[in-house]
This record gives sequence, C-alpha cells and structure tokens, in this order.
Amino acid sequence: MHFASDNWAGVPDAVSSALAAAAGGFATAYGDDEATAAATAQISALFEREVAVFYVATGSAANSLALASVTPPGAAVFCHEAAHIVTDECNAPLYLTGGARLVGIQGDRGKIHAGSLAATLERFGPANVHHGRVTAVSITQATELGTLYTPTEVAAIAGVTHAHGLTFHMDGARFANAVARLGVSPADLTWRAGVDLLSFGLTKVGAWAAESIVVFDPDRAAEIPYLRKRAGHLFSKSRFISAQFSALLKDGLWLDLARHANAMAARLTEGLRSVPGARLAWEPEANEIFPILPVATVARLEAAGARFYEWGTDGLHGDALPVHGKETMIRLVTAFSTTAEEVDQFLAVAAG
Amino acid sequence: MHFASDNWAGVPDAVSSALAAAAGGFATAYGDDEATAAATAQISALFEREVAVFYVATGSAANSLALASVTPPGAAVFCHEAAHIVTDECNAPLYLTGGARLVGIQGDRGKIHAGSLAATLERFGPANVHHGRVTAVSITQATELGTLYTPTEVAAIAGVTHAHGLTFHMDGARFANAVARLGVSPADLTWRAGVDLLSFGLTKVGAWAAESIVVFDPDRAAEIPYLRKRAGHLFSKSRFISAQFSALLKDGLWLDLARHANAMAARLTEGLRSVPGARLAWEPEANEIFPILPVATVARLEAAGARFYEWGTDGLHGDALPVHGKETMIRLVTAFSTTAEEVDQFLAVAAG
Amino acid sequence: MHFASDNWAGVPDAVSSALAAAAGGFATAYGDDEATAAATAQISALFEREVAVFYVATGSAANSLALASVTPPGAAVFCHEAAHIVTDECNAPLYLTGGARLVGIQGDRGKIHAGSLAATLERFGPANVHHGRVTAVSITQATELGTLYTPTEVAAIAGVTHAHGLTFHMDGARFANAVARLGVSPADLTWRAGVDLLSFGLTKVGAWAAESIVVFDPDRAAEIPYLRKRAGHLFSKSRFISAQFSALLKDGLWLDLARHANAMAARLTEGLRSVPGARLAWEPEANEIFPILPVATVARLEAAGARFYEWGTDGLHGDALPVHGKETMIRLVTAFSTTAEEVDQFLAVAAG
Amino acid sequence: MHFASDNWAGVPDAVSSALAAAAGGFATAYGDDEATAAATAQISALFEREVAVFYVATGSAANSLALASVTPPGAAVFCHEAAHIVTDECNAPLYLTGGARLVGIQGDRGKIHAGSLAATLERFGPANVHHGRVTAVSITQATELGTLYTPTEVAAIAGVTHAHGLTFHMDGARFANAVARLGVSPADLTWRAGVDLLSFGLTKVGAWAAESIVVFDPDRAAEIPYLRKRAGHLFSKSRFISAQFSALLKDGLWLDLARHANAMAARLTEGLRSVPGARLAWEPEANEIFPILPVATVARLEAAGARFYEWGTDGLHGDALPVHGKETMIRLVTAFSTTAEEVDQFLAVAAG
Repeated sequence: MHFASDNWAGVPDAVSSALAAAAGGFATAYGDDEATAAATAQISALFEREVAVFYVATGSAANSLALASVTPPGAAVFCHEAAHIVTDECNAPLYLTGGARLVGIQGDRGKIHAGSLAATLERFGPANVHHGRVTAVSITQATELGTLYTPTEVAAIAGVTHAHGLTFHMDGARFANAVARLGVSPADLTWRAGVDLLSFGLTKVGAWAAESIVVFDPDRAAEIPYLRKRAGHLFSKSRFISAQFSALLKDGLWLDLARHANAMAARLTEGLRSVPGARLAWEPEANEIFPILPVATVARLEAAGARFYEWGTDGLHGDALPVHGKETMIRLVTAFSTTAEEVDQFLAVAAG
Repeated sequence: MHFASDNWAGVPDAVSSALAAAAGGFATAYGDDEATAAATAQISALFEREVAVFYVATGSAANSLALASVTPPGAAVFCHEAAHIVTDECNAPLYLTGGARLVGIQGDRGKIHAGSLAATLERFGPANVHHGRVTAVSITQATELGTLYTPTEVAAIAGVTHAHGLTFHMDGARFANAVARLGVSPADLTWRAGVDLLSFGLTKVGAWAAESIVVFDPDRAAEIPYLRKRAGHLFSKSRFISAQFSALLKDGLWLDLARHANAMAARLTEGLRSVPGARLAWEPEANEIFPILPVATVARLEAAGARFYEWGTDGLHGDALPVHGKETMIRLVTAFSTTAEEVDQFLAVAAG
Repeated sequence: MHFASDNWAGVPDAVSSALAAAAGGFATAYGDDEATAAATAQISALFEREVAVFYVATGSAANSLALASVTPPGAAVFCHEAAHIVTDECNAPLYLTGGARLVGIQGDRGKIHAGSLAATLERFGPANVHHGRVTAVSITQATELGTLYTPTEVAAIAGVTHAHGLTFHMDGARFANAVARLGVSPADLTWRAGVDLLSFGLTKVGAWAAESIVVFDPDRAAEIPYLRKRAGHLFSKSRFISAQFSALLKDGLWLDLARHANAMAARLTEGLRSVPGARLAWEPEANEIFPILPVATVARLEAAGARFYEWGTDGLHGDALPVHGKETMIRLVTAFSTTAEEVDQFLAVAAG
Repeated sequence: MHFASDNWAGVPDAVSSALAAAAGGFATAYGDDEATAAATAQISALFEREVAVFYVATGSAANSLALASVTPPGAAVFCHEAAHIVTDECNAPLYLTGGARLVGIQGDRGKIHAGSLAATLERFGPANVHHGRVTAVSITQATELGTLYTPTEVAAIAGVTHAHGLTFHMDGARFANAVARLGVSPADLTWRAGVDLLSFGLTKVGAWAAESIVVFDPDRAAEIPYLRKRAGHLFSKSRFISAQFSALLKDGLWLDLARHANAMAARLTEGLRSVPGARLAWEPEANEIFPILPVATVARLEAAGARFYEWGTDGLHGDALPVHGKETMIRLVTAFSTTAEEVDQFLAVAAG
C-alpha cells in the first residue's frame, strides 16, 4: 500500500525496453546525438511548435536553471508560498540564480490567483537597487496540493505576468497528470495560455530520470547550455534520457499512465467518502489526495503497512479545514503502477 | 570506427538487465532505499572499508561537489594544468565551490609530481586573506592523457598533500581503466595510498549515468547531502543509479569491461607502430592513445568514417613531440564495446 | 526640512576631525594597524567583553557576511517579513550566503515575537535535504518601523533561538537609537540577552561609513576574514573606518547623537498630535515616525520642500491603521543633525 | 622608512578638507546626490567623454564587479599569471563572477604581450560548453611589478581583444602613477587605446577609500548598479567617496601626488645603483622598485626599522635575475607622502 509519493514508483516496461534498445552502438556525447534530436522533435510535435529542450537529471535542476536563465541580479520571482521551489529544493533555486528572491503569494489550495498576483506586483513597484526588480512568475501544474490551473486561469496569470514584463514559468513535475485530467492539449495549457518556460518532467509519471526545460521561444534559450553545464547537469550519454522521453511520449503513453494514476486517485477519493470520520481537505483534481482522518485510523493504516506522509496544515485553506486535535491530515499520492487492489485494501483498513 | 570517446559508447547487457530488474514495485525515494544501500555496501566492500557514497548525475558534479565539500572561502586547489576540472567543465568546479582557485601545475604526460607539488605549495606560503589558503590537491586517474599514477606515485603526492594539511581528491572518471591496468586493488590505489575523496565514475566504462563521490572517512561527509541537493543533484528514483553500480561491480564486470577497453587500446597501439609515418606522443597506459600522424593519414581516416578528435599539443611534453607542419596529433579512445575488427579496420586504413 | 532618512545626514565635526587626525604617517594596511586595534578595544570595552570586530563598507555587507558566516547549504534564516535583509538589500543576503532562505514571520509593528518564532520553528521541523535546516534568527534593533525590542523581548527570542540550536543575529543599523532610548547597556541589549552576532553600524547616527560585524564569541569568527575579503569588503586603509568608530564611541558621543535624533522625533511626534487630521500609525519609539496624514497635508508639505517617503501599509498593523482613501502614510526620520527649527517648521506647514 | 606599500600611507590635507567640507547638511543617499554627480562629471571631463562611474569601497570590488558585468556562465578571462585579480584578492573575482576562469598568461616584467595573448586565444578556440567561452582580457596599469604599458602596447592588446569579440578591462589601482610617468592623457591611455572598463582607484595615490568602475560606453553599464548593491557595495552617504574623487582630481592633484611618488621611486632607484652588491631586477617605471640585495643588507635595513616586503621570484624574468643564495629580492613602494629624507636614510643604511 504505497501512497507516499509517485517518485517511489519504478518505471513501466516501455521505459525499460527503450533503455535496452538504446544500449548498443556509439553515439555522439553530450546531446549532439540522433536520439536526443528525435526526442526534442517529439516534444516540439507534442507542443505544436518548435521548442528548445534541455535535459537534466532532476526537477530541482530544471526549475532552478529555468529560473536562472531569466533572473538578473536583484530579481524577484513570484510564486505560491507553498511552491516546491520555495519549500522542498534545499534552496537550489536561490543558489543557482545567484540569490533571486522568491516572493510567496498566498492562495487557496496551492494556487495563486491573477488578482492577488496583480496586487502583489503593484505593491512591489518599479525596479530599484534596493528592493530589486520583478522578473518572473512561477506556478506548479498540478500544484503541490493536487489541484489544477485551467487554461483560463493560466492565461489570466499570464496576462498579469506579461503586462508587467515578466517571464512566466511553469513547474510541470506532474504536468502529465494535469493534461490527462483537464483533457486539453499541452500547447493550450502552456504557451497558448502564455507560459514561456516549462519544467517538463516525466519522472513522476514513469521515467527513472527524465526532466527537462522546455523553452517555447528558442531564441530565449541561448544561455541555458552554459548554465546547465556550469552546474554539472549535462549528461554525457544523453541518448538514455532521450530514450525515456521518446518511449513515454510515443502513442501518448505518458498520458495513459497519468490517467491511470488519476483514476486510482479518484477511486481512493470515492472510497474515502465512506470511511467513518474521514473527510477531504479539498476535492482532489489529479493524483494527490489530502484526507483528514481520525488519529486512530491513521495509526491503523500505518500498522497495516500503508506508506504515506502526514501533512502540515499550516497556512492551508480547505473546505474541511481546520484539523482538530484527534485528527491528522495526510497526503496520498497514486502512481502509474498503483493497483485497484492496493487502493481497495487501503480503504478496507481505513474503514476499520 | 568510433574512437572519439568512451562516453560515445552505450551500455552492456548487464546494465540494461539491471535497470529492467529494478523497474518494478515501490521504493523509498531520494536514496533511502534498499538498492542504494546495497550499492553502497558493494562499494564499501570493493574498497575494503566502510565509505560514504553520494550518487550524482555527472562526473562534473562529482568533482565539483567533492571539492565544494572541502573548500572554504579563499581556497586554492592544486591540480595538473590540463586537468579536466580546469579545462572541460565550464567552470563548474569554480562555480560550485564559491570561487575556489584552481592552481595548475605543469607535469609531463598529464601527471603532477610530488616534487613539483611540494615546491608549489612551499611558494604559496601560509594562509592569508589575500592569496587565500591551500586546501586540496586533485589528480585524475587515469589522466586526461591516458597515463597512470602508480600507488607509489599516489602515495608520494598524498604525503606532500597531507604534510601541508590538505585534502586529497582523485577524479576517477576512468578509475576502472587504471585499476584494470595496474592490477592493484581499488583500496591500494586510493585510501591506502592517502586519497581522501574519490569521484568514482562508471559511466565511461559502461553505465549510462553512474557517477558518485566516495568519501573514505564517512565522518567528513556531513555537508555533502546538502551540497548535492542545493545543486539539484539528488535523484529521486535513486535505485536506478544504484542498480547500475551494482550490476557493474558484481563479479568484477567493471574491470572486465575496462580490461577489454585497455586491450583494444593495446592492440591499436601495437598496430600503430607499423603505420608509416606514425609515432606515439608517449606510451599509452590505459584506453587513450595519442598518436602523431601524417596529415594525409588523418584525412584518409576521416574520409573512411573514423571518428576521433584532433588534440592540441600546447604545453605537452612527450617522447615524440613536437609535432611538425605536416603532422597532426589525434586522440583515440577505446571503450568496452570497441571490437578488434574495428581496431583492425582503422589500422588498415591508416596503413594506406 | 529633511526627514527622508538618517543616511541623508552628514557627519558631526568630531568625525571630520578624527578623519583629519588619522591622515598623517604610515600604518599597516588591511586592518593590522594600531588605530583599528584601538577601535576594536573600544568596542570590546563598550560591550564589556572581548569581541571580534570586522569592519565593512555598508550595512548590507555587515548583515550578509554575518549571516554567511553561520549559514551552511540549505540554511533557513528566520526574521520579520518586513526586515531590511528581505526587502531592501537587492538580495545581497541571499547571494552572499549561497542561497540561504529568509523565512519571513509576521508581527505587529515590525517585531517578531518569541511565541510566533517558536511556532514557526516547530512547524519547520528537523533538518532534511528538502526543506533544509533551521540556522539563524535575525531581528532589527531599532526595527524598520521605528519600534524597539526590550532586553526582555530580546532574551525571549534568544531563548527560543538557542533552544533550537540556532544563531541569533541582530541588525543594528540603528542600534544607537535603541540603546539611547531604552537606557540600557549595549551588553544588556545584546549578548547578555543572547545575541550572538551584531551588525553594529554607526553610519546612520553620524559616520560617513562605519559598519561592522561584532562577534561576541571570538572563537566563532574564524571564517569572516575570508568571507569579507572574498566579497571585496576589506578596506586597505582601515585606520579611517576605525577612526570613525573611535570618535563616535569616545565619551558616548554616538549616544548623544542618537539621543538628539530621538528627541527630535519625540518633538515631531508631540507636534503631530495637534495637526488636524493627523494620527500616528503606532507610537514611535526611536527616530522614525509613521504618521497618517490627509493627502492635502502631504501635498502641502511636499510643496513646501519637505523631504520624506510615502510608506506602503501592506501587511502592517497599527493602532491607527487602516489608511483611508484621502490619507497617506508617510515615514519621517530624524537625524543627529535635525534641528528643532526644522521640526517646528515642518509642523507649522503640516498644521496648515 | 616606510616602503611596504602605498596603501600604508594616509591622505593629503586636501582630502581631509574635502571630507570636512562635505560633512554638513542633508543629501540624497545612495549616490543620487549633487556631489556624486559632480564627481562623475569631473571623471567624464578627465576622460574627455561621458562615462558611467560606479563608486565602490575597494579595488577588489571594482575589479570583480567590472568583470562580473561582462562574464556569462562559462566565461574565461585572460590576464597576466601574476595579476592581482589572480593572486591577491582571495578569489573575489572568481566568486563575484559566478566562477569565471582566470587564464594566466606568462610575460616578462608583469606584462602580457599582444602576441602571446593572440596565441592563447587562438588555442582556446570557439565557445563550447566544455571549455567555455573567451570573454574578457584584463591588464594592470601600472603592473604589479611596477612596469607600464605604453598607449601603443595597450592598443595592440586591445586590437587582439576586440578582434576576438572580447571586453578589455584595465585594473587601474595605480593608474595615477602610470599617467604621471607616461605623460599621456587618461583618455589616450584607456578608451582611445581600446579599453572598455577601468577600475579607477585613487586610494593608493592618496584617498582613504576611493575606488570606482568607469564604463566608457555608458550603454554597457546597465547591470552594474544591481551587481554592486547585491554584493553590498553601494555606499549610502555617497557624497563622501565622491568628495575624495573631486578633491584629488581638482587641478590635477592626483597627478601631482603620483609624480611625487614616482620621483621618490626614481631617487631611490638612482641611489640603489651605488649600494654595494645591489642591483635592480628590472628598471622601475612607476613607484615600485624590485632590488636584489645581499641578505646582510636586507637584515641591516630591517634592523634599522625599514618596512618592506621580501618578494618571491617565482616565474619572474628580469635583467638581473636569478637571485642567488646570499641575496634576497625585495619590493619597495613609494607613496605621495614619502620624503626625500626617508629615501636618503634608507639608502644610507643600505650602503652600510
């Protein structure tokens, strides 16, 4: 019963096969190989325009280097106060940008809203050497709280972002889950809605390590090769990261895998509605669920070997919040390899 | 006829199989999993002592973060003037150490000698805030010029290094080739000879991405987890990098692969002795060969599709140097997957 | 009528005389001179213990390097959300610490409270490589909003800080105003109350450039000389910065100057109580006053040549807040050279 | 008998007077004041064109921030192997540029020559993400060895620099001594000869702290204000650094002071020619002299209280080198305040 994180999952057969198929022969190192060109072409096709793609080892690297490519000294970057780049990357975005300031914005369910972004930017005022200069906005899709931005919401934020002359970045560590659930095209959810830079990651949906920076206007990508190499993030045998992208994007496998993870989350969600004393902090929209459970239920689940994290409620606002003394909020994450049996077993234990 | 670099090679079946075998089930993310513990135990066994191991994506990351873990502000690190950390990593070691200065030392065939290191350290003098403070020595094994340090030579450098209170780092991107050729134990070639930190990489010998920092005294490793994560170098699905280490270290496969690459280099070396107009800049000791060839021979090889790099002779000293106007020095690198046929074909074209 | 900032003021005669007196002869450069030793001895005497002092050019440098000396990779530093280090130093503290995260804490009138600090630290939890590690707490004395921490309040914050194993830093850009107003000894307001590191600045109270880092336990100061020089902050002719410290500390001049500035602020405060439509956002405690005035009054003052800044009320809580549509909150700062005539003239114009 | 360094000297009366004259009244902080505008206008007049000037606390800051303004990730900067930026700034240029690599070039008497620069750039080759990209050239005027570049030599280096698309920086910590001795205009020695960026320092010639970055094409200066503030190098009371520049530049005082220092060096040089056993490593050209003296003579001078530094001869080439076992090379530096009596006293002791 593994619901701790989707990065506890392994990889589907297609990825193993693709890695094996890439194993033979010689190929130019450092990304100047056919397999990498092919993966980039696939990503361009996926997004319905020619894009520049930079493959890196981790999502933290993708986020940090994407931001580094647009943040001059004194830069301020605006994001949700609970964004992964703020809370979970050991300050990598601060470090790799030379000290860009991450200005956290409050917002329900892990999302910032165009209105509060506009108000924050308004208060920040024009650039000066003391408070610095507004530079970029970053949102996470799906958010850290398992919620989604619709294309309309993305476009509203983009409107504010671009009206102030800023760059718009999307952390897409769970982009697959968002696309799968919203049923829109990757293009509609990104550049057509105004996104300039995407951290496009497939690790959580089924790669072993397949993260990238997608730059929708390739003319704005000139510095990233140097930023990437200077941070030690250029793979020599690039064909193996490319192979993972290619295998997962082929015939929409990445979305099939995401749909399965989402479906398992939905099954879990429905089941939780019948668990005594359980309620959802808010309605899940992708593959992360935040139920509030009696302490005894949580203990029973742990005793039965279920794996998940307790989640702090600090600063959060949800339909079912606050959490009371005899309750705990937990986070449940489903993956491409989560089974219905595993979900049902969890629910059975939870029901007591 | 691929002799451009050993990182143009792919991976052997054992690696593909290991990656596939690791694909199923759930495992704790970020290195706290059984497979990673097992790989670290194997590395400890290999080195005949308990070591701390930090897995990273690239050799540049391993070198840079290893040095970052021992370099305070104002640090000076001593290495060969042609060391990879100086010339080929886009300043990553400078950047990720907060500006440590790399002091290049001259030395024949890519090697620094204990005597010249001692003289350099002597001239540097005691720490002050102007010229900074001597901090570490880094050597590459096998060197960038395909030569080797014997355990005795390593120990001599270690003696000077430790007499000055410095840390001794070894860049082991081709450590396998060195161990295979020297026929000594990994322990004898590292910590028993005084090495404190090893960038232990298996990518060039057959992994797709398997690099690591090995800290021989685990008590000195406390900062590396944070340095690694802050630079975006902590893999979430660590089991897949661990699987590569495990597969290659099992039953000495890494050394078999290195021995094969070395043997192909030896075959190439012997054949070159009969090629008209060819001579070796110096005797190869591992899997890199630096022949000086007539320009016409080089052109003929290129026309026949052979892949290799021309190599600048600036600052180099070899038995057969200098290179004259109608000659070119090239670098030939053999890999685990280089075949005797490929070698013989190359020699046949070279012979004209 | 200059009330824009105390750093718009010049210097008193004593500072000019001291600089002139230091002009002759030769002295060892880079701080190894008698004048610098004498200034450090004065500061030790002032604080009633032997301290280590590092002189730097600016308050931003003092704050940033003080924090840099205690923040390892992944560090989190806790401070008021409106702290100068967060909002007004162009990200210098982020940059010079290698990306330390500044966690802003809310608090009335620019002050953090021990209770909310404790709650924030509790939620942060034990160190890990994702969210990083709690490292330091920084408060500003006097605060950016012209309020003061009493020794008891400082001690309460220190208690929480040290209970979590953190370092306690105080930004003392207006430390003189605080000491003068509170009537306590510098020792009681700092290390006896638990402060570990003080940015001790005399520029705002009357030097032209006299900022320093005071380390109360000199054993913890070993890295600062290198941090300072690596950032380009070591003056060669150190005697001239030392001379300013010496002149201002001699016979308590710095406190006399601060008392004058505070007295002018009190005169201004009292006068404002009679200005029609004026009220104070909160009671001033040092040399900064935040009145809320009718828009027409502000315009009249500006027309009369008064210099001051309008001040945003975002996130602020004061007795007289909120500010209404026809009002503006401004900031008035008095200096050692502010005259009673200037104050009275301002009040006369304000009264209309 | 102080010949240790020109930064052991104090300041002339004109500087003390100017600081005193600037003491009164209020002025806008952070460089937006009339005195700073006036100093910048003087510097523009001095250089016979409109320039952008950025005032900073130290020469290391000026050099590092000047280079930081032109060095992207992976940058290589070319300079003499004994340049101050390489050997004496605690890695500040490496740190503040985010790891720019300083490539040391050999050259007699502390000077690089256009030919060897061209050869070095040729070997470096076109930009790639491994070895990085050539970005800037930096020379020191006067050099660290007391020699000078003529305008013709500067222009030759500029020609090579610009032919490769690089920026040309001059470290002018002793620019005054160079201008005074060469008898050319500041414009002819800098931008008219192709210099793009000048670290223009007056501290060594007589200020207490007056360093600056002069950008000859103000359009290329846009990032420096942010770089400066992010590094903590923006003085609040800028008028006091400006006042020093103004006082020293007025009526050519800076050159008078430099001429005096140079004359004292010439007197010392002439005198040394008659000292038994003494010879000059090379002919001094500004205010630094490198005599080779019998060990006994050096001991006698030290016993008499003379202050100077012994100087390593490593890598140096001079008319009188090498230094033999019973000799020592020392460095003697004269300052604006060095007296003829002091020089003669030194010579008398040296003569024995």
